[in-house]
Amino acid sequence: MSIRSRRDRDSAGSRHKFSIATFRGLQQPELSKRLSRLIKSENNAIGAHETAGRERGSIAAQLSEWGESTEDDAISDISDKLGVMLAEIGEQEDTFAQNLEDYRGVLKHIRNMEASVQPSRDQRQKVTDEISKLKYKEPNSTRITTLEHELVRAEAQNLVAEAQLSNTTRTKLKEAFDIHTAAVIERAEKQIILARHARRLLNYIDDEPVVPGDSRHAYDHELEARQVLEDAETDLRAWRPSVQPIASSETHVNGLGGNGVHADTDSVLTNGANGVDTTGPPEDATSEMERAEPAVLAS
Amino acid sequence: MSIRSRRDRDSAGSRHKFSIATFRGLQQPELSKRLSRLIKSENNAIGAHETAGRERGSIAAQLSEWGESTEDDAISDISDKLGVMLAEIGEQEDTFAQNLEDYRGVLKHIRNMEASVQPSRDQRQKVTDEISKLKYKEPNSTRITTLEHELVRAEAQNLVAEAQLSNTTRTKLKEAFDIHTAAVIERAEKQIILARHARRLLNYIDDEPVVPGDSRHAYDHELEARQVLEDAETDLRAWRPSVQPIASSETHVNGLGGNGVHADTDSVLTNGANGVDTTGPPEDATSEMERAEPAVLAS
Repeated sequence: MSIRSRRDRDSAGSRHKFSIATFRGLQQPELSKRLSRLIKSENNAIGAHETAGRERGSIAAQLSEWGESTEDDAISDISDKLGVMLAEIGEQEDTFAQNLEDYRGVLKHIRNMEASVQPSRDQRQKVTDEISKLKYKEPNSTRITTLEHELVRAEAQNLVAEAQLSNTTRTKLKEAFDIHTAAVIERAEKQIILARHARRLLNYIDDEPVVPGDSRHAYDHELEARQVLEDAETDLRAWRPSVQPIASSETHVNGLGGNGVHADTDSVLTNGANGVDTTGPPEDATSEMERAEPAVLAS
Repeated sequence: MSIRSRRDRDSAGSRHKFSIATFRGLQQPELSKRLSRLIKSENNAIGAHETAGRERGSIAAQLSEWGESTEDDAISDISDKLGVMLAEIGEQEDTFAQNLEDYRGVLKHIRNMEASVQPSRDQRQKVTDEISKLKYKEPNSTRITTLEHELVRAEAQNLVAEAQLSNTTRTKLKEAFDIHTAAVIERAEKQIILARHARRLLNYIDDEPVVPGDSRHAYDHELEARQVLEDAETDLRAWRPSVQPIASSETHVNGLGGNGVHADTDSVLTNGANGVDTTGPPEDATSEMERAEPAVLAS
């Protein structure tokens, strides 16, 4: 029930050896490499849904024009109205791609946070390494004390960074897949409405075989077929999301039943994250750190 | 409520000027050109859905591996199980593409029939032209009588061809969009099942902000998360098509309440259609023509 064994699938993503995108991927800090690659793949998936939607719209127009060219009243009318339905199915595919773009944007928050936490880890490691090197080479150097103070500061900073990373990862992962799954359901429910009404149209094509030379009954379903389009439009307009909201601490922040404490997430602790909208610890965490830091420094 | 005005969309399909596909398109008889182009566009749409499904599978694996790398038990478990759901959503996208391939195959029956009817129209036109040319140049030529007999035969043949075309077009159009719309609904219903269960997983991620230095509660939703996967699998396996069948004369042929008369569609009249599986007129139409032809010839 795990898909971790399917590692071989990944190789398909690295075909273009000399593209800028791969170059950029290499420049990503270690911590954010995986998510960077995922976000890139998501771009391909979104592009595929956009193409599918665009092609569906084009096919819809072609179907309608083909139907007109048959000079068969029934085929002409039904193919035109089927075309309207297909075009709308294509529109829904495009809306789905746009919603996935929103989800992809939320994943970028996690990637940016990962990228901004990397220097903090590196700095702590660097100072630790310098101290042990110095202790071996010049055990009596006064720089050791200075570096030890620096290490305490680096550790404090990293402690905050890791908390920010954990908070952002969890909140944004929930938010991202809340958007993603709701988008899957929205496309599905709307396309079901369209496909079900489209099937009603098919029943207006009389396909009893005709004998050569005989003419068919005149087509008289034009009003009914138009009614099908109107029904589909009405149903689409009446569509409302039916998904259960995902419980999230961020939902509280946005005023849905929150206790007011978390109202301001723009704390000083998130300033290191290159100005991106991170989900840093709430205010009380900030003051916690402000209280904690002098104590740590005095050790 | 018509989409015939959206003609400009079509231009996007003719970018590759020198491809074999375009060359082939030019070779198609006039009558089947439009549908040939549509079938070609459908190939692009199907390819886009295949790409979307493949990318979704790759993203699913990447999500799971990213989650493992976070060394956060909750993120690791949920991302792996979300990955399983996404991979299955990707599989459904691929199944959808395969079903569209079936629908595309049915459209080819109409195109092939169109292509095979073209020579019959051409032949009738050619003989008509020859007669009027001869009547002008050599009004007393004995060839005129011969050609007039030939025209009667050509008209009889064309009458059959046009009936075959009408029957095939109507039956196969219904069949094609029966498959197409049922495929849209199947993908939609199955992806709704998967997305709804995936949303349950998200609620097992505790995203209450942690204060720097504090550790989170241990993750203890592993069994519940596994249950979500099992529920999704059970629901998928229990899925049955819910669409109303489309009334079709061909459904009768296949034994669903037919009267037995149309059981054998492989009449001699369809032999001219390059051996493709056409929906020619039923047996009684054949004998109708066999009775009609000598009478026509005697005129």
